[in-house]
Amino acid sequence: MDKIKRNERLAAMTQILTASPNRIFTLSHFCELFSTAKSTVSEDVAILQETMRQFRLGKLETVTGAAGGVRYRPIGLGATGRDFVEGICERLREPGRHLPGGYLYFSDILSDPQLVHGMGTLIASQYYDANVDFVLTMETKGIPVALMTAGALRVPLIIARHATKVYEGSAVNISYVSGSGNIETMALSRRAVKEGQRALIVDDFMRGGGTARGMIELMKEFSVTVAGICFVLALENPKHRSIQGEKTLMLLSDIKEGEPLQIRPADWID
Amino acid sequence: MDKIKRNERLAAMTQILTASPNRIFTLSHFCELFSTAKSTVSEDVAILQETMRQFRLGKLETVTGAAGGVRYRPIGLGATGRDFVEGICERLREPGRHLPGGYLYFSDILSDPQLVHGMGTLIASQYYDANVDFVLTMETKGIPVALMTAGALRVPLIIARHATKVYEGSAVNISYVSGSGNIETMALSRRAVKEGQRALIVDDFMRGGGTARGMIELMKEFSVTVAGICFVLALENPKHRSIQGEKTLMLLSDIKEGEPLQIRPADWID
Repeated sequence: MDKIKRNERLAAMTQILTASPNRIFTLSHFCELFSTAKSTVSEDVAILQETMRQFRLGKLETVTGAAGGVRYRPIGLGATGRDFVEGICERLREPGRHLPGGYLYFSDILSDPQLVHGMGTLIASQYYDANVDFVLTMETKGIPVALMTAGALRVPLIIARHATKVYEGSAVNISYVSGSGNIETMALSRRAVKEGQRALIVDDFMRGGGTARGMIELMKEFSVTVAGICFVLALENPKHRSIQGEKTLMLLSDIKEGEPLQIRPADWID
Repeated sequence: MDKIKRNERLAAMTQILTASPNRIFTLSHFCELFSTAKSTVSEDVAILQETMRQFRLGKLETVTGAAGGVRYRPIGLGATGRDFVEGICERLREPGRHLPGGYLYFSDILSDPQLVHGMGTLIASQYYDANVDFVLTMETKGIPVALMTAGALRVPLIIARHATKVYEGSAVNISYVSGSGNIETMALSRRAVKEGQRALIVDDFMRGGGTARGMIELMKEFSVTVAGICFVLALENPKHRSIQGEKTLMLLSDIKEGEPLQIRPADWID
């Protein structure tokens, strides 16, 4: 009977911890839930830690101190991050994705729930210790990856819009020069973020960083610090560069019609 | 040693199954992963089923037949669906969410990773047997909930845009009358969906159903069947109604300035 109980506890703990990534659960929480002693829960945690490590299912960390406990940080993807990203590069190399004007069709990749979960997890893994208060993206295509990044970091997602919407209340608008050279506007509801917070910017594609530069300027208007910038895909050698220090999951050489796509995982991914 | 192995298997199986909702894993898959006998894996599955049931963590189903195995369907939320949705209603009743013109601020709710995970899970639970090929939403605010619904159903998310974008390739455009009475356009890439597929429409808010009617018309252009329509929030007694048979998580009486918000979970949620 006792054995069955440990099995049940471990299964339930795994589901609870992995469903709320980056949230610290006190050991007392599990003691109450399972009506069991703290020493027993500690043993359970040790077993789970070893299992997660062994099967590359993420990292279970014990946090000491007054607000201490245990938290799950999704890092592993069952495979290595590099294999996962190389798999996406492989799909992007499929013929027919080149569009007129040097564009690449990858909307399907950017809204595939399993793929964006993996990509968001990988991006989040680089910012667990960056004390991020929210993830910021610009509508539309980056929203799914940014949402999964925010979920893994357990912070809200904030979406900047192209124009002020009546249902967002009063907003701050700025103008910026987009990657294609046009002057565009970006708007964010006044109540969306607070002064002094720290933002992680996540977006789908960097051509020269114009939109990201706009998001940085927007954050200045709110007195928010930008703690990091990460893209799904970035042009490797842009002609103009509006930002520095960004990360990306994949790097793309210039798109030339009729030539195979040169795309590869970024070097930091192992 | 043998006992430890069962513990480890159960923890790893829980993580693997819950990370890929609605995907059927064969028992052989786990036999190979753990180098163990089918009868042992069957016992593991029985323990997991009981645990998920007991702690309301979702449903583990065994699927018979040639393509058979075991799949996880997130249904429970740790609490009841009604408590969860009532909690969101509670937050929407907070003062200051009324905006001029009878609008309601709920962008924060619609992009909170934990809340959209719960909402998407609840919506998906109504369509597990509807043979849905993809979830369709219209940019921007409904994207996070629609993504989580698609994730739980293990189907792609398809995002209709306000205008054709160069990076989407050739597209189908239609005109529709929005909830506020304006003529707007909606565009979807030709390659996004296939003739004969079945769509589940998910969106954030129904005023009179104009945008949803537009999505239905758009699907007709692609010869796609609409298998269901679900909103996060719907006006309870709209003056004009463009669609029938929709579901919603929450119902809202007309918004009157200076009066408390009348909002409640839909009756189907238990």
